[in-house]
Amino acid sequence: MPGRILVVDDVATNRLILKAKLSTAYYDVLEADCGNKALEVAHRELPDVILLDVMMPDIDGFEVCKQLKSSPETSHIPVVMVTAMGSPEERIRGLNAGADDFLTKPINDLALFARVRNLMRVKMMFDELRMRDTTSREMGLSDFLESLDHSDEGQETVMLSPPDCEIGKSWRESILENLDVKVIGTLSEREALNISSLELPDAYVVSQNMMENGDGLRLVSALRSKPETRQSAILFVVSDGTVETAARGLDLGASDYIMAPFDPNELVVRLRSQLRRKKYSDRLRSNMRDGLKMAVIDPLTGLYNRRYATQHMSKIIDRAVESKGEFSVMMMDLDRFKLVNDTLGHDAGDLVLKELSRRLQENVRGVDLVARMGGEEFLVVMPDAGRFVAEKAAERLRSSIESEPFILKSGDTLSVTVSVGVAIGSAINCDADDLIKQADQALYRAKDNGRNLVSFFASAA
Amino acid sequence: MPGRILVVDDVATNRLILKAKLSTAYYDVLEADCGNKALEVAHRELPDVILLDVMMPDIDGFEVCKQLKSSPETSHIPVVMVTAMGSPEERIRGLNAGADDFLTKPINDLALFARVRNLMRVKMMFDELRMRDTTSREMGLSDFLESLDHSDEGQETVMLSPPDCEIGKSWRESILENLDVKVIGTLSEREALNISSLELPDAYVVSQNMMENGDGLRLVSALRSKPETRQSAILFVVSDGTVETAARGLDLGASDYIMAPFDPNELVVRLRSQLRRKKYSDRLRSNMRDGLKMAVIDPLTGLYNRRYATQHMSKIIDRAVESKGEFSVMMMDLDRFKLVNDTLGHDAGDLVLKELSRRLQENVRGVDLVARMGGEEFLVVMPDAGRFVAEKAAERLRSSIESEPFILKSGDTLSVTVSVGVAIGSAINCDADDLIKQADQALYRAKDNGRNLVSFFASAA
Repeated sequence: MPGRILVVDDVATNRLILKAKLSTAYYDVLEADCGNKALEVAHRELPDVILLDVMMPDIDGFEVCKQLKSSPETSHIPVVMVTAMGSPEERIRGLNAGADDFLTKPINDLALFARVRNLMRVKMMFDELRMRDTTSREMGLSDFLESLDHSDEGQETVMLSPPDCEIGKSWRESILENLDVKVIGTLSEREALNISSLELPDAYVVSQNMMENGDGLRLVSALRSKPETRQSAILFVVSDGTVETAARGLDLGASDYIMAPFDPNELVVRLRSQLRRKKYSDRLRSNMRDGLKMAVIDPLTGLYNRRYATQHMSKIIDRAVESKGEFSVMMMDLDRFKLVNDTLGHDAGDLVLKELSRRLQENVRGVDLVARMGGEEFLVVMPDAGRFVAEKAAERLRSSIESEPFILKSGDTLSVTVSVGVAIGSAINCDADDLIKQADQALYRAKDNGRNLVSFFASAA
Repeated sequence: MPGRILVVDDVATNRLILKAKLSTAYYDVLEADCGNKALEVAHRELPDVILLDVMMPDIDGFEVCKQLKSSPETSHIPVVMVTAMGSPEERIRGLNAGADDFLTKPINDLALFARVRNLMRVKMMFDELRMRDTTSREMGLSDFLESLDHSDEGQETVMLSPPDCEIGKSWRESILENLDVKVIGTLSEREALNISSLELPDAYVVSQNMMENGDGLRLVSALRSKPETRQSAILFVVSDGTVETAARGLDLGASDYIMAPFDPNELVVRLRSQLRRKKYSDRLRSNMRDGLKMAVIDPLTGLYNRRYATQHMSKIIDRAVESKGEFSVMMMDLDRFKLVNDTLGHDAGDLVLKELSRRLQENVRGVDLVARMGGEEFLVVMPDAGRFVAEKAAERLRSSIESEPFILKSGDTLSVTVSVGVAIGSAINCDADDLIKQADQALYRAKDNGRNLVSFFASAA
């Protein structure tokens, strides 16, 4: 799991020491001896982690960090600032510049390696989610995904598991004063694990010593291994103040740690940066999902499209053949839809298609497939539905459209009807194309016979 | 990073010992005292890793493993078999049943934890790629992705970095006798890292001691951290026969290890199972990519669709506004296309659309956007192209269609022409909808003036 680390320091000896340590652990080390060089190497080599000295002759570490974090090419690279003093003020300044963590000189090996392992893990996950491969870049897929809109994101939630109620109260106050989040607390180990999946927090602040003798390390580990909370941010509060515990916390899956006692501002800033990272990974995941949805969903009606319908229908058929059951295939067409578009305009036409889709979905079972095949044509496939069930269902669908007029934007109402053609599939009549053709033939008959009718394919009629 | 481990053993003491060890390291332990119970718990709880005893009263470990690996719900869960003897025959039998590794009783802690960490890492990556979240399942996205076809997968490649040429030769022979793969060897550490990215191997067999004093551990680490080889399978050959080195190899990123000297069959079986895992993860990644491609590509012509075009056009506009440059927007329409469809049929129509798309793409620059907006309507957006450049380009596109007749399936030829409307965008005329409307107006004029013409939007003309 090692990776490429850029070591930035103007003192050659410091670089040498770090390089020796990291190389022994098989990390690949790049070097830069000043801020400008650091920016150049970071952009050219895109390392996995950057260890950045604060005091440098040309540009100081805070400024380098700020520049790295504001450039789209390097903003995702984790930065660990290496400081001589390690005052809370300095840490907060660094965190505000976008730093992911701090190491104090002389560097403790345990702290160094635990942090580097943690950042490497996060980086690999992001790399995977960002689809940084050549095909995706060539296709413009990454750009496309990043352009998707997520303005509906709600307020974030933070859960607190403090050592006692008093401390929990002070954490809550600092957080609520500075961040626009909802705080849930004060929870014991057991309660923290049993939060309903409906209100899972975005971030957990978990103290090593918890109320009711809870074990913070055990909670971190449990949260990280449960699928529902695997993606949450976890800020681990080291109660005993040792580097060993901090390293243990990171290895068990904490996203970040903070040494107690701490400046409340440091808690706020670290939490803010973890929430930001969490939001970014959530967005990458939902971009992926939304992108994929677009491949299978008709944008106007929200129904599945023809591509998905074809694929899903073949699954329904396979299952029916296996269980020797029957299933039914319906093609449905809006009657005289061209007239709606031509006389009332495309907006009215779109509204009719949407409302019709809504009614169709309301009148089928959960297992049924409803899809828009194009234009004003819809497909419904019902597993385990022979002629008797299909007849009732088709009639219900037809009348759900006819029974209530559609209300247009203008407030006017419009009577709409559909014609339906049905074919019954079985182990001996199980070719998807054939069945769609049969349903289509039945549909033509329904149209010929005056529309607003359900008609069955002849051989089954 | 701990997780949930199912311990299967009919002897209570054995379960107790393992549970104690694992719990101290904060793993969550589930138990089963026989093969049937193991299958039941595995299906219900879907643990992250299964430690499976071989000798059991009801069903033995091999059979349990086979059943787990053949059920779609549990096939992705890593299985480590725990044996008393650890003979090569037993190992090969286990590997053939689908086991991921072996531990010999009494269990060495180092070997146990290194292996569990490694399997947990692999499992988490798969979980991420399998999109196992509720939304994806509800949308049927996972099913949809799994239905995609990848029949064009070629022969797999294996790279060998043996301790010497003689041994390399024997590895190669065993592999080629048993697996249908291409073998590259015998490579030194430096050569292995410099393989051209065009022929990157699917799997590496890396010996701890390599030729020219190479360090196998360093190579494992380097391969795992390079983005190009991060996804490759790495089988690490432990030359010094110690558990410490094996554990080190796994922690540095090896997918599996084998202790030298080994039975050639064990090499083959382990390699086969790593190649299978690699193929599975490649497929998950390409499913994702292909699924996303479908969201942005018009299936008939392979051009970008309207959705992608709109998004990409706004990017081109942003850049032009920033650099105060000009850009051009062309709407293009096949002349009298309805006639082609009505008289020659839809197949001929589709062929014309495809050939036309090919010619358009051949006659634009790499930075230009070509998209099918629907039916017989196409959009071309050219960054950094003012009136002068646009006029030449539009004329070139128009004549590329007219100049050579289209050849139909029947062998007959067909003369096809297009009309083109062009609008010039700039910082003060930069609304995407407006520009498309302007290009559309120009297009109507080209049609009015007799078709097969390029026309510019009036205000720019």
